[in-house]
Amino acid sequence: MPRAVADSGENLDADNIAQCNMDRGAHQQQHGYKVGSPPNKGILTEFASAVKETLFADEPMRRYKDQPRSKKLWLALQHVFPVFDWGRQYTLAKFKGDLIAGLTLASLVIPQDIGYAKLANLPPEIGLHSSFVPPLIYALMGTSRELAMGPVAAISLLLGTLLQEEIDPKKNPLDYKRLAFTATFFAGVTQAALGFCRLGFIIEFFSHAAIVGWMAGAAITIALQQLKGFLGIAKFTKNTDIVSVMKSWNWQTILIGASFLTFLLVAKYIGKKNKKFFWVPAIAPLISVVISTLFVYITRADKHGVAIVKNLKKGINPPSASLIFFTGPYLLKGFKIGVVAGMISLSEAIAVARTFAGLNDYQIDGNKEMLALGTMNVVGSMTSCYIATGGFARSAVNCMAGCKTPVSNIVMSTVVLLALQWITPLFKYTPNATISSIIISAVLNLIDYESAYLIWKVDKLDFMACLGAFLGVIFSSVEYGLLIAVAMSLIKVLLHVTRPRTALLGNLPRTIIYRNIEQYPEATKVSRMLIVRVDSSIYFTNSNYVKERILRWLRDEEEHQKEQKSPKIEFLVVDLSPVNDIDTSGIHAFKELFGTLEKRKIQLIFANPGVVVIQKLRLAKFTEHIGEEKICLTVADAVKKFAPQSTENV
Amino acid sequence: MPRAVADSGENLDADNIAQCNMDRGAHQQQHGYKVGSPPNKGILTEFASAVKETLFADEPMRRYKDQPRSKKLWLALQHVFPVFDWGRQYTLAKFKGDLIAGLTLASLVIPQDIGYAKLANLPPEIGLHSSFVPPLIYALMGTSRELAMGPVAAISLLLGTLLQEEIDPKKNPLDYKRLAFTATFFAGVTQAALGFCRLGFIIEFFSHAAIVGWMAGAAITIALQQLKGFLGIAKFTKNTDIVSVMKSWNWQTILIGASFLTFLLVAKYIGKKNKKFFWVPAIAPLISVVISTLFVYITRADKHGVAIVKNLKKGINPPSASLIFFTGPYLLKGFKIGVVAGMISLSEAIAVARTFAGLNDYQIDGNKEMLALGTMNVVGSMTSCYIATGGFARSAVNCMAGCKTPVSNIVMSTVVLLALQWITPLFKYTPNATISSIIISAVLNLIDYESAYLIWKVDKLDFMACLGAFLGVIFSSVEYGLLIAVAMSLIKVLLHVTRPRTALLGNLPRTIIYRNIEQYPEATKVSRMLIVRVDSSIYFTNSNYVKERILRWLRDEEEHQKEQKSPKIEFLVVDLSPVNDIDTSGIHAFKELFGTLEKRKIQLIFANPGVVVIQKLRLAKFTEHIGEEKICLTVADAVKKFAPQSTENV
Repeated sequence: MPRAVADSGENLDADNIAQCNMDRGAHQQQHGYKVGSPPNKGILTEFASAVKETLFADEPMRRYKDQPRSKKLWLALQHVFPVFDWGRQYTLAKFKGDLIAGLTLASLVIPQDIGYAKLANLPPEIGLHSSFVPPLIYALMGTSRELAMGPVAAISLLLGTLLQEEIDPKKNPLDYKRLAFTATFFAGVTQAALGFCRLGFIIEFFSHAAIVGWMAGAAITIALQQLKGFLGIAKFTKNTDIVSVMKSWNWQTILIGASFLTFLLVAKYIGKKNKKFFWVPAIAPLISVVISTLFVYITRADKHGVAIVKNLKKGINPPSASLIFFTGPYLLKGFKIGVVAGMISLSEAIAVARTFAGLNDYQIDGNKEMLALGTMNVVGSMTSCYIATGGFARSAVNCMAGCKTPVSNIVMSTVVLLALQWITPLFKYTPNATISSIIISAVLNLIDYESAYLIWKVDKLDFMACLGAFLGVIFSSVEYGLLIAVAMSLIKVLLHVTRPRTALLGNLPRTIIYRNIEQYPEATKVSRMLIVRVDSSIYFTNSNYVKERILRWLRDEEEHQKEQKSPKIEFLVVDLSPVNDIDTSGIHAFKELFGTLEKRKIQLIFANPGVVVIQKLRLAKFTEHIGEEKICLTVADAVKKFAPQSTENV
Repeated sequence: MPRAVADSGENLDADNIAQCNMDRGAHQQQHGYKVGSPPNKGILTEFASAVKETLFADEPMRRYKDQPRSKKLWLALQHVFPVFDWGRQYTLAKFKGDLIAGLTLASLVIPQDIGYAKLANLPPEIGLHSSFVPPLIYALMGTSRELAMGPVAAISLLLGTLLQEEIDPKKNPLDYKRLAFTATFFAGVTQAALGFCRLGFIIEFFSHAAIVGWMAGAAITIALQQLKGFLGIAKFTKNTDIVSVMKSWNWQTILIGASFLTFLLVAKYIGKKNKKFFWVPAIAPLISVVISTLFVYITRADKHGVAIVKNLKKGINPPSASLIFFTGPYLLKGFKIGVVAGMISLSEAIAVARTFAGLNDYQIDGNKEMLALGTMNVVGSMTSCYIATGGFARSAVNCMAGCKTPVSNIVMSTVVLLALQWITPLFKYTPNATISSIIISAVLNLIDYESAYLIWKVDKLDFMACLGAFLGVIFSSVEYGLLIAVAMSLIKVLLHVTRPRTALLGNLPRTIIYRNIEQYPEATKVSRMLIVRVDSSIYFTNSNYVKERILRWLRDEEEHQKEQKSPKIEFLVVDLSPVNDIDTSGIHAFKELFGTLEKRKIQLIFANPGVVVIQKLRLAKFTEHIGEEKICLTVADAVKKFAPQSTENV
């Protein structure tokens, strides 16, 4: 034993001796553990737990456990209106942070909203309306501190594209507006329904990669559209004809647009360079608006063909419930558009909220968020707002400006309210070129090339989805790109479950550890034994592949052995550690495998089946079929039990 | 050390000492193995291998490796026409088996085909045609020995339902027939295309469970339809009105139907009871036809209102290529129907072929099968056949009758040929009631209640899919049931990847094995450490759930510890053994997890990441992020390294 001690480089205390002895025990089937299979829970418990994991993974009810009735009610109220929760610890210090954040936000969003509304082919004041009511609702119901509510570029473009397929915004502006409200209403209903039915996980089927690609595509489409603003075309539309461009060519407009775009980009650069100057890019838009508006007002450049915002209705949101199509042919169309736009805006908001929650270490409640966003948009649709959601850019500004609670949203919407009441008339003279340059500099944030590069590096298939969505938007339309994004995501999942990985295992010399020989070149194969690991659940989509892949490993190995003149294979060990679940097709495939192997005088051995797998194998009587003794706790056990002399190479 | 020896109950030979020492070595990070991560293969190799596993999993080219040119050609010919392969070892003994099998088959299928054709609202001779040409083609190209080709009940019903939605078979029989041929043509094209593009795995998305349910539903629908045959209604149609039933009531018909059904069921029972009487149920249909036909012919019962087959054109298949719609509105409809019917019949044939190949221990080549079936149906569509495929019942008869090669198909089709040439006129007097009873007894085979019961026992979710498809067919239509079947299958896959299992691991006392404490109650938790295993790949569909589930495990554990007053948790070990793949969303989720844990002063440790996972973690610089030393080879290593004193509880 001294040699061993020397090797191990430490004194053998009793503990270690026992340890060592027991380890060998483990190695030689003397630990006496059998593969555990707890009694089958029975369908109801099983079903209940499945439902719980799927819909109530976050255990919403646990906080109500053993609480007095009144307390329960109070908790329920807090659950629906978190403001009652954080509101009680609200302090002046916090308000200071929220005030600054709110003011910064307002200066950023007021000019943006006017532009975004135009992306959706809606009158500019609708954009401002959407930054007044929704933030208030969200402040009462939301769980995220940083999320800043209002219209966002990509969704505005999507909504605009979908709506104008149904109604021409020029010919029939009223019906167009009504359809927009209808879509917003149903977007809200969809979001609230998903949250209420706790089906939030549905939006997780938009893969991150696909969304990155889609956003970038939307951003570029928007930017190209806006460039037309420079050429003085008042209307934001996709179809441009060279004649109208030439006609409306106007050097003052180009000058204004170019100069302010430069100004905004420089501001953005400063903000990036030094984080404590984050407010520079934040207020730059407002500054550009003020300056350019004054400039036009003084020089009356609009008389010289500089396109300006012109009509911008003042006053707060008029009620619009009566405008929603609850009957007629547009009901269904509005519904469809709403569902799509609702889901996308939802997934964006949740993603953004999650990011910031992660940064500041708190959890957001996905389903509660959906309820909040849904209510927000439903109320919005009845107060002349179109779909609002939590955009990344403005939330980032909100966060950097030091917001502490959703109060910053309230501050912002108050400022927007004042703007609507008194300032808006002044925007009359704001040149479209300025709005365009503001939008362009805003949407550039949506092009997340860093993520794209990371995706490319890490997962090529993911990148395909990203690229597909991107090209889809660029060369076809936002909706088509979206379709590609979703399709790609699903195909990825399905491909993954159709062709799982399998690996050949070898023993790490001088240990009882068995590892993938591709990953661990030092791992040595066990003679007369082939150890295969299946790296996925086995069910109908892949059961036949798995069976045939295992047989291929066997065939290749046998050929290899013929060359080597090494003893033929007598045992096939299938390591089931990574196999989490198996269905009837999977068991069927194993039965076929067993039959084939039997004919070839090769014994089939299973190592370390999980709880579900062993239960199902038992239920299907497969364990009796191959023999209980063929089911081992670990690969090491299997080796020790069936090919002991193979320890020669250990 | 003596105590240890005593425990281990055997002498310590040098080998054991070394072993034991090394085991402890392994246990104490002295085996010096690092988590292996082979150099990244680079996109091309990666992509190539992905394509290979997806499309060329069976390595079709390996047989051509280092072969002379002429040999290669010969092999290619054999690949397309396996007949050149097995044909060379064909012997008289084999032919004897095939002859008997072929004759038995013929006696079974001739009456069935007449009935199945009527299920598809097609003239009876089309059914016989479909048992003449297709089997010949398949015999040359197929790789399955047992598969017997011809029309099958379920597909005939499906085709009939889909076709009569487009054209009324009564009002416009010719166009109906033409559409049927068009559908058959495109069914063949679809099948061949899938085989040629090696996209065979697509059909694996019809889950076994769903198909079982669908088949049973179709069987019951058919049986109920046929019962109307007993009431003397000549036409097989779904919509029956009580008046016509009363009018056509006819006791002779009922008598004939009832008695022959009894006869057939008794024959079936005999066949089941004693395997060597398999031929009894096989020839029973022909006997019933002969007897009932003679009976009608002698008594002229048809004069007394017994509905008979009446017009059955004699002669072999007329060419029908000119009848296929290659233009006009019906082209697209035929195409759609063809794609659906083609895929279903494909999945049935492949499933049946796989089953028998498994029984007789040989592999069938899925893609080659598809090519064969496709060609078969394309040629069939041009020779007055409708969709043929390999039915289970007839293939079982073929197998039990001792077929050795596809020659039994040739024998069968020769007999059918003779029947078409000379015997068919005699079928004129066959009562529909007999045909109905033959179909009823045939479709009863499709109700696989044993499988259904097994599915129920093993996997409740699977059973839902099964039941859904079944009820869909019964209460709506075969196509709707099919839709449900596919949808259910996909939902199952998606649910599975959205809510993966996670498990808490504990140490099996006196070993270095760590297992799910739910499965192994004897497993003890390691103090100050929480060991969680994620039982699935981590990507966008489940990354957030996984992250939040892990945090929930942690929260529950911490509460538990508060009660226990046991030391607080300092380490969270995530066992990645079952994690086969991770995408950017997954890595993002881990980053968030790491951030949250850092704030709580808990160290994040990874155990046993697979080759893909470790590569991606490295590429994403996440390993540097959490520190290379936090990535351990095994859970045991992690425990030894970070919580050594926890061995107290070992």
